[in-house]
Amino acid sequence: MSVKIGLIGTGTVGGGCIDIIKNHREDFKRHYGVDIELVRVCSLDRKEAEAHGVGDLFTDDFNEIIGDPEIDLVIELIGGTGVAHTIVTEALKAGKYVVTANKALMATAGEEIFHLADEANVEIAFEASVGGGIPIIDPMKHSLISNEVSSVLGIVNGTTNYMLTRIGEDGLTYDAALKEAQEKGFAEADPTADVDGFDAAAKIAILASIAFNSRVVLGDVKTEGIRNISPVDLKNAREMGYAVKLLAIAHRTPEGIDVRVHPTMIPLSHQMANVNGVFNAIYVVGDAVGETMFFGEGAGAGPAASAVMGDVLDVARRITLGVPPIVGCTCTDKLPIASMDSLETRYYIRFVVPDRTGVLAKAAEVFSRHDVSLRSVKQQGTSEHNEVDLVFVTHTAREKNIRAVLDELAGLSDMLLSEPTVIRVED
Amino acid sequence: MSVKIGLIGTGTVGGGCIDIIKNHREDFKRHYGVDIELVRVCSLDRKEAEAHGVGDLFTDDFNEIIGDPEIDLVIELIGGTGVAHTIVTEALKAGKYVVTANKALMATAGEEIFHLADEANVEIAFEASVGGGIPIIDPMKHSLISNEVSSVLGIVNGTTNYMLTRIGEDGLTYDAALKEAQEKGFAEADPTADVDGFDAAAKIAILASIAFNSRVVLGDVKTEGIRNISPVDLKNAREMGYAVKLLAIAHRTPEGIDVRVHPTMIPLSHQMANVNGVFNAIYVVGDAVGETMFFGEGAGAGPAASAVMGDVLDVARRITLGVPPIVGCTCTDKLPIASMDSLETRYYIRFVVPDRTGVLAKAAEVFSRHDVSLRSVKQQGTSEHNEVDLVFVTHTAREKNIRAVLDELAGLSDMLLSEPTVIRVED
Repeated sequence: MSVKIGLIGTGTVGGGCIDIIKNHREDFKRHYGVDIELVRVCSLDRKEAEAHGVGDLFTDDFNEIIGDPEIDLVIELIGGTGVAHTIVTEALKAGKYVVTANKALMATAGEEIFHLADEANVEIAFEASVGGGIPIIDPMKHSLISNEVSSVLGIVNGTTNYMLTRIGEDGLTYDAALKEAQEKGFAEADPTADVDGFDAAAKIAILASIAFNSRVVLGDVKTEGIRNISPVDLKNAREMGYAVKLLAIAHRTPEGIDVRVHPTMIPLSHQMANVNGVFNAIYVVGDAVGETMFFGEGAGAGPAASAVMGDVLDVARRITLGVPPIVGCTCTDKLPIASMDSLETRYYIRFVVPDRTGVLAKAAEVFSRHDVSLRSVKQQGTSEHNEVDLVFVTHTAREKNIRAVLDELAGLSDMLLSEPTVIRVED
Repeated sequence: MSVKIGLIGTGTVGGGCIDIIKNHREDFKRHYGVDIELVRVCSLDRKEAEAHGVGDLFTDDFNEIIGDPEIDLVIELIGGTGVAHTIVTEALKAGKYVVTANKALMATAGEEIFHLADEANVEIAFEASVGGGIPIIDPMKHSLISNEVSSVLGIVNGTTNYMLTRIGEDGLTYDAALKEAQEKGFAEADPTADVDGFDAAAKIAILASIAFNSRVVLGDVKTEGIRNISPVDLKNAREMGYAVKLLAIAHRTPEGIDVRVHPTMIPLSHQMANVNGVFNAIYVVGDAVGETMFFGEGAGAGPAASAVMGDVLDVARRITLGVPPIVGCTCTDKLPIASMDSLETRYYIRFVVPDRTGVLAKAAEVFSRHDVSLRSVKQQGTSEHNEVDLVFVTHTAREKNIRAVLDELAGLSDMLLSEPTVIRVED
């Protein structure tokens, strides 16, 4: 008996899945005793299906998949929270197993989706939603489950990691790095979701929910992107012994779950400091296991399809054996989300000011008045336009006080000639 | 209904498991709906059980565990292939699920054990047998199963990785590094299994069996240890742009499975070159996923117990749900083991010779006659004892020819004053 699959979305990842099924179906039968059969393929573009040799399975109406009683398992690969939400929820209600790579959907409607899966006695699997091909959701739900996880740190957006690598190693400006990433196909025409951190935010919401057995949604994640990062910041960081990464962070704290995405300095000696280019890595700290890291390609047809098809085979194996769903929603604990105000860390802050006597002293006074103690202050850069960079590195300070400093500086006329670059330090 | 557990072996890892059950049993019930109950603890030393507060569960006769019809699951943590073999096979025959950290047993008797588990319709789980706390066996059997794996590379022995790190970074001799590792508890009094590579060989046998769906046993693995590695070798390697690691290697080749353990040069830019100290890492390359790496602590009570208890909870969840065993033996394909003779790679070879005119030319002639082309030849070191080091780096050469060179050099009287150090290059 084959497990019958309907696939919706024939872009890069969908095409990769079709190829894996075509190339390895016989291997899967021999190795795992599981026969997966692609019976229907839905997309807006018949040519995409034809390009992968499955034009005969094509439909442009997803209802022909979720309404087909023969189909056991639906792969949703169109992304987003619109039509994809309808497809996933309706497929589950129709009693079909669902595998998805949809981080936005899982990070916003995860709880609803888990409950629908529970009610229908089927499974929802979403390994590909975080870290491309890197196994991370399954290991956290199985191998690491005996741990109380204290922290999850992720470099989970390949676009920004590629850009930061290029800015840091080759001195490209933000704009040049973005242009190059777009030319290479690593960044979208509209790069907002990547460079402003929302893609990473959705992923850390998903990981935090699993790590802490408590629902974390996209809206819970405080998010800052990399638009204000310049080559000089990465150079300064390196001189201080740090690499700068757009880090997705989730810590268990006494005040609740501290969850955020922002440019972050990590020590050059840390394993994650060497994760460069489009590679992703997720770092998990547990009370028994200590430190572990999962590294690999975070995007692309092959890696994402590997994760989707790993889920498909796992689910198909249980369907074949007649085994009920095993792992459901990780939402038993109801932990609060910690306010970012109470965050205590060190800060690197740079902004451009007019090259005028007294500006530095005036800025330093604002830090001092808000109880932020400075570890180093530096004025740097040419003053050809009568502008200079001021670089402040603080001792451990409270986020709330830093916010007050930045607000006051922004309010001083003739002080800030640029939006401040703020990089937090994670030691 | 609780899942009743008998634990055999109360050393470091066993103690860690007892602590996890004591500290997290209620969490596991709440999070996963699984109640695990430790009902019997067996070891040779009652004091160890008492130290972890389970003196009342103590027995020194393992038959009281495998003969107890109440017990669902046996954790075997005594290691080795003697009594442990009896315990694991008898427990399976008695219809009990078994979780073990025993690499030697799985690498020698794996197939027998899988068949016994199949016959009894129970499971054998062994995540902790490789890489300590690092999830690797479960991800390879689940998340990565849609891949045809081409290579697995592992730094899977923390003792030797610690020693190589100390030799390389701080110039310790082999003997000093070993002594320090023993003092810190990273190496046994008899370090043979670690420094001669047998521990790593057992682990790569297990990983290769899973990666290639074909049984690989300890005896299939060609193994060389690190006894001949000196600080000068690591210094030479670094100057060439390489780190030296005791690498466990398994490649799928047209001739079959190429599986071996030996000191290996890897480029400093490779992610594994930064895996230092007692940390372990396993690098997996698949046709869809590309390159992935799993990093973490390879030894110690916490990490190993994390892996054991991950297996225990996973198995206990299936016992609780009444789900039959899902993943069995990965032994459907019968791939041959490739002969090492046909290996083609680059070699770094160093040996001590008398400081006499003509020795270098004579040695170089031997390489040439056996069709080994040299990329660089260097004479180095002081000659205070009338001895110098000769260092040869070859172009790509055949293992068979290198063996012939080394045999011939060893046969020349007055040529080799030391056993040659041979380091293969993996690019």
